[in-house]
Amino acid sequence: MNSLPPPLARLIAELAKLPGIGRKTAQRLALHLLVGPRADSAALAGAIAELHDNLRFCAECFGLSEGERCLICADPRRDRSRICVVEQPSNLLVLERTGSYNGLYHVLGGALSPLENVGPDDLRIQPLIERIGRRETGEVVLATNPDVEGEATAVFLARLLKPLGVRVSRLAQGMPAGGDLEFTDDLTIRRALEGRREF
Amino acid sequence: MNSLPPPLARLIAELAKLPGIGRKTAQRLALHLLVGPRADSAALAGAIAELHDNLRFCAECFGLSEGERCLICADPRRDRSRICVVEQPSNLLVLERTGSYNGLYHVLGGALSPLENVGPDDLRIQPLIERIGRRETGEVVLATNPDVEGEATAVFLARLLKPLGVRVSRLAQGMPAGGDLEFTDDLTIRRALEGRREF
Repeated sequence: MNSLPPPLARLIAELAKLPGIGRKTAQRLALHLLVGPRADSAALAGAIAELHDNLRFCAECFGLSEGERCLICADPRRDRSRICVVEQPSNLLVLERTGSYNGLYHVLGGALSPLENVGPDDLRIQPLIERIGRRETGEVVLATNPDVEGEATAVFLARLLKPLGVRVSRLAQGMPAGGDLEFTDDLTIRRALEGRREF
Repeated sequence: MNSLPPPLARLIAELAKLPGIGRKTAQRLALHLLVGPRADSAALAGAIAELHDNLRFCAECFGLSEGERCLICADPRRDRSRICVVEQPSNLLVLERTGSYNGLYHVLGGALSPLENVGPDDLRIQPLIERIGRRETGEVVLATNPDVEGEATAVFLARLLKPLGVRVSRLAQGMPAGGDLEFTDDLTIRRALEGRREF
């Protein structure tokens, strides 16, 4: 493929670095951009170029933000008595997509992991405690991932926050919607049993 | 999702315009670019931005090129006695990827289609005839698509070019590699039978 014009080869190589995009898909995308209107390519290039320049962490919740405070923290309609704690900004976006949470967030920046040398001081736990102290926070929803590190982080935070007089909850664990008992792992079934609710 | 920071929302919207990329994939790619090194995003943005500026059609074969003539036409190692006729630059790239053709190409820019009002004058047929006259062309390989328009175009070109004293061939049609007789359509099987070769 050394017969590819260099600008096209460069673009294909860059696109193929993206997760889940192989050489064939990269080539298809590159040709799509090439035959499409110049304005579309310019808009995409601009959006990628400005991403790092125009995004930073919200000073309050450490989610992604264009300005000093993110749209969620600045939104007067959000319920300020609830803080949902997540590991990463991407987790926040997933929760927002469901549209079923109307409180604030707090992004830890990771999860406790002795193996990877991530301790409490490496996460944004102190700012969380300060936030809880600053405002009247009624509930902290722990939405760290349901894996070993996320569970450990949730347990750690629950012990730390409960003495502050705040209600601490954890996302429910159980069968995923549309799941099948036969193909569900034992741990999930055990948690679904433990967390069973009156019908 | 109006809580997304605008720069991220813009990028997700632009990425989701690409073929085969939905909103979820677009969000994943955008977050990948965001958490990745700034240099990677800059390289991708640059490659997309320069694509239209730095690519044009080769003056000889109408394939994609950075300069006046494309790398294939300019390559002295290519067999100049063969011209492979394709519909689009993307078809050329697919043939090149196989590495099993060492001649030149000619990009028609489409296929004859009365329904879409594409006639012989809308394709780069005259430049092809001129190329054949200019150089000693021994063979023209018709590699238009094996669909109705591509077939019609191949038949049209064969009638036009044979009187010029040039050998005209067509890509073989038959069973695809790894195919299964049971799941192959009748037309393909008929063509595979017609084109059967001595074993």
